Amino acid sequence: MHSPEIDRLIQYLGRLPGLGPRSARRAALHLLKRRDSLLGPLADALAEAAEAVRTCSVCGNLDTRDPCSVCADPGRDAAVLCVVEEVGDLWALERTGSFKGRYHVLGGTLSALEGVGPEDLNIAGLLNRARRPEVTEVILALNATVEGQTTAHYVTDRLAECDVTVSRLAHGVPVGGELGYLDDGTLTAALKARRPF
Amino acid sequence: MHSPEIDRLIQYLGRLPGLGPRSARRAALHLLKRRDSLLGPLADALAEAAEAVRTCSVCGNLDTRDPCSVCADPGRDAAVLCVVEEVGDLWALERTGSFKGRYHVLGGTLSALEGVGPEDLNIAGLLNRARRPEVTEVILALNATVEGQTTAHYVTDRLAECDVTVSRLAHGVPVGGELGYLDDGTLTAALKARRPF
Repeated sequence: MHSPEIDRLIQYLGRLPGLGPRSARRAALHLLKRRDSLLGPLADALAEAAEAVRTCSVCGNLDTRDPCSVCADPGRDAAVLCVVEEVGDLWALERTGSFKGRYHVLGGTLSALEGVGPEDLNIAGLLNRARRPEVTEVILALNATVEGQTTAHYVTDRLAECDVTVSRLAHGVPVGGELGYLDDGTLTAALKARRPF
Repeated sequence: MHSPEIDRLIQYLGRLPGLGPRSARRAALHLLKRRDSLLGPLADALAEAAEAVRTCSVCGNLDTRDPCSVCADPGRDAAVLCVVEEVGDLWALERTGSFKGRYHVLGGTLSALEGVGPEDLNIAGLLNRARRPEVTEVILALNATVEGQTTAHYVTDRLAECDVTVSRLAHGVPVGGELGYLDDGTLTAALKARRPF
């Protein structure tokens, strides 16, 4: 019923996370009604990103430069590597503005079910970086999921050969969180790790 | 923290309906990780749509041809005009495959609050079309909202000068709907409009 151009637009929009077939149609309509203010600029922004954005060969971040702006920043502490699963986690940590070291993106987690082994993740690259004399600490900022923690244990074992301290993010009550809604595991962890007031 | 290219992409994606800042970041990351299979094709689809899609000068539909494929189809009944608020409503009716007449897109509803008057909607175009001798019925398929129904009353008054039957969509229980979850207005309308079994 639609022209093939509109159909194709709806189809590709529907492959974005968070947009189903219905919301993809709504998004397409929204775009078509705003040709100059949104449709054109979004097309340009996508084309530009497709052209310019690449994966950092050092840490795996996405940026228009390689090494990325974090790796290339001489003001960042080269002694601390923060290991994350995905670029989105790196972005989340950068938004806090509270980490001044460098990152290392693994590119996922180990998963026997999905057939992801150590060689599928950027673990060799991490070991190479961790062996450098200037690196003294590796922070494992992996998701607090079964897969994330399995991967953290594996990476810790592999890092034993390097002369670095390995740490992980603290578990506890999320800031603003209500105890009644928290799971038992989080509450137990928060109790165990209690701090003087 | 991101490169300007990634920032701009996130910003434009966040202006799509249904995507907030957080899901726009997720969508941008999803796209950047699928450069060849999704990012490039979506950029092309948007550019193509921006180039090719126009508003039908007869009915207000969006299509790559003008008159649109519905208006240009000689197999569609020229005697019946179905009036809708937006192109999305036309798409929804077309998906049912159960209407074989032509459409007329008003482009919104009357709204004193938002300063939308009759001259802001394509009502003059509707009257011109309804005056043609071949047109015998106008179906008002406007939303069952206060604004939609106010607009329906106004359009009905204006159509009095044309020699057409004016009808509206039936109210009743949605197919698959459970009575316990329906509002009183719908139930009352469904009772009043009851049909022999």
